[in-house]
Amino acid sequence: MKIKVVVTLKNGVLDPQGKAIQQTLNGMGYSNIEGVRQGKYFDLEIAERDEAKAKAAAEEMCKKLLANLVIEDFKIL
Amino acid sequence: MKIKVVVTLKNGVLDPQGKAIQQTLNGMGYSNIEGVRQGKYFDLEIAERDEAKAKAAAEEMCKKLLANLVIEDFKIL
Repeated sequence: MKIKVVVTLKNGVLDPQGKAIQQTLNGMGYSNIEGVRQGKYFDLEIAERDEAKAKAAAEEMCKKLLANLVIEDFKIL
Repeated sequence: MKIKVVVTLKNGVLDPQGKAIQQTLNGMGYSNIEGVRQGKYFDLEIAERDEAKAKAAAEEMCKKLLANLVIEDFKIL
């Protein structure tokens, strides 16, 4: 089954890439954009029919590889 | 209000980064991972109280800047 994961920077961690996107959007005329934070998204195709087990495996993979828990949070969707 | 956007590669577009993650996970012992596709995630803070208007603005921004529609799809969450 397919598990979707989002990895985002923790609050307080600087995000220069998001800032650059925000400034570009502002420059394009979207003056109502007050902030942009960029993160990563993963589609994991796991050979496992049990949703709870698949999600538990995805969580383990996030902790070990996909997210840097010092500066990032992750969420299994 | 906050609008979340996910940008993913279209089916059929090669994703070497996802492939590398998959091979790493397989090498770490997660042999049940059959595929990984990586995408981008954006948190947009829009000064707009009307959810429909905010989502419409986000869609426009995706088309103009955030996604390359030749090879990517986007989804407003």
